[in-house]
Amino acid sequence: MIEQQPLGEWVDRIDTELVRYFSGKDLSANPLERAMEYTVLAGGKRIRPLLTMVACAEYGGDGPAALPMALSSELLHTYSLIHDDLPCMDDDAMRRGKPTNHIIFGEANAILAADALQAEAFAILADADYPGLDAARRCSVISELAEAVGRRGMVAGQIMDLGMTGKTINLEQLELLHRRKTGCLLRFCVRLGGFLADVSPAVLANLTTYANAIGLMFQVVDDLLDEEGDSGAMGKTMGKDHQSRKSTFPKLMGAEEAHRYADRLLEEALAALGQDGKRDGLLGVIASFIRTRNH
Amino acid sequence: MIEQQPLGEWVDRIDTELVRYFSGKDLSANPLERAMEYTVLAGGKRIRPLLTMVACAEYGGDGPAALPMALSSELLHTYSLIHDDLPCMDDDAMRRGKPTNHIIFGEANAILAADALQAEAFAILADADYPGLDAARRCSVISELAEAVGRRGMVAGQIMDLGMTGKTINLEQLELLHRRKTGCLLRFCVRLGGFLADVSPAVLANLTTYANAIGLMFQVVDDLLDEEGDSGAMGKTMGKDHQSRKSTFPKLMGAEEAHRYADRLLEEALAALGQDGKRDGLLGVIASFIRTRNH
Repeated sequence: MIEQQPLGEWVDRIDTELVRYFSGKDLSANPLERAMEYTVLAGGKRIRPLLTMVACAEYGGDGPAALPMALSSELLHTYSLIHDDLPCMDDDAMRRGKPTNHIIFGEANAILAADALQAEAFAILADADYPGLDAARRCSVISELAEAVGRRGMVAGQIMDLGMTGKTINLEQLELLHRRKTGCLLRFCVRLGGFLADVSPAVLANLTTYANAIGLMFQVVDDLLDEEGDSGAMGKTMGKDHQSRKSTFPKLMGAEEAHRYADRLLEEALAALGQDGKRDGLLGVIASFIRTRNH
Repeated sequence: MIEQQPLGEWVDRIDTELVRYFSGKDLSANPLERAMEYTVLAGGKRIRPLLTMVACAEYGGDGPAALPMALSSELLHTYSLIHDDLPCMDDDAMRRGKPTNHIIFGEANAILAADALQAEAFAILADADYPGLDAARRCSVISELAEAVGRRGMVAGQIMDLGMTGKTINLEQLELLHRRKTGCLLRFCVRLGGFLADVSPAVLANLTTYANAIGLMFQVVDDLLDEEGDSGAMGKTMGKDHQSRKSTFPKLMGAEEAHRYADRLLEEALAALGQDGKRDGLLGVIASFIRTRNH
């Protein structure tokens, strides 16, 4: 967990808001609501909404006020986890130290809960308040999310991932896979913060460079942790057959070179922030956290 | 198929536009694009986009110009069919006379293709042109779709459907199930046409009454066709165990009363149009078509 103020406090606010998002519903009677809530509230680093709030605040927007809109990416991300864990995909029984959604609620409810979470992410972007946000910018944001998570983004990455399991791929293919599978959504999160703060196109370009770098670094570090860590710290099933049949950065480049690559990506992210004199700000702290996290 | 001009012609245009939507992609190399295309282009009555175009045209908008935005509901509908057909849900091997998506592409690709179709529906609403449509109305439309298909709409209906299979339910529950599962999206389609034509709130209310009536009628007629038809005409697997374990309007009220109920709903739909002097227009033709269709 990120300890530095106000980041730790913001993560707490995100968690509180997510709980509130499910409150007031008659959850016990409704398997859909229970299944949605289960994985959303099962923990997680909340990096995505945090990136939006921080990017917004760093560039002159109202970070805490960005929270309602920022939740969209967490719900979207949760939907993708639920589907990725299904038996016909990665077949994972554990996630964040708990049984996965389909283990608890069955496959049908898990698939549908995730479907509803995707719709809800768009509902939030269409409806949530942010001071001074005009409808035109709101439409741009919705368009960006749809692009980031659809046929040319996240879903395309997951299809590549499944298709490449057990096959020999090169570094370029692995990067493309991860830029799509996780990078596109992370980039959306950062850019959403920029949009809300109404930054210039030049600043948005720097934020995009930052986001692309930390997105890829996130995966390189994930692969390194998978290689070096154990399932207790990571909270998911480790060393499974299908996992060992997937290409990773350490496998393709060696662990040492993968560490150096992560360092270069961190520097690239910080340099992009430096263009706007923000190298030492909170977005830099998040980038460093992603590089050095141990779970 | 609807023969009356210009409806037949508009359905052709919808089909042409859907083909164009997938053209120019390297489909052979991409299982995601192929799986998306397969079920979208596998046929269907295209009632949903047609309702949007006709509602728009009947109330002073540009019907043909509404086509790009109207496609959103067809893609959304197709995603729901693909997920509904999965082994863990209705377990249907045939749909529209062809093997279902997961039979051809496997479960993982089917789930992901549908996921991408949901995102694409929102992308279309965020991006597609319609003359004079302002960003504020566009946001309202996106908000309505998200509401119609999510936790309080279509997905909630599908969860109810699965939960009530094999159980005794009453007419009120059956109606609620179908108002959610299919009614919400059909209502969105009609209201989208009204939004694009920029109708008054009073007219939108009449369109909503019309849409609610035809949505429910659609299902009553579907149940009657299932009861009386055969799988050849309907193009899907009939009389399966799980189907026979579902409640239907003919089972709950008797076939004769179900026919009378469908007639009453048709009259309700036409009366709503009559409020605006549109009883004899093309929306009325569509309502009558839904009542009298034999497949």
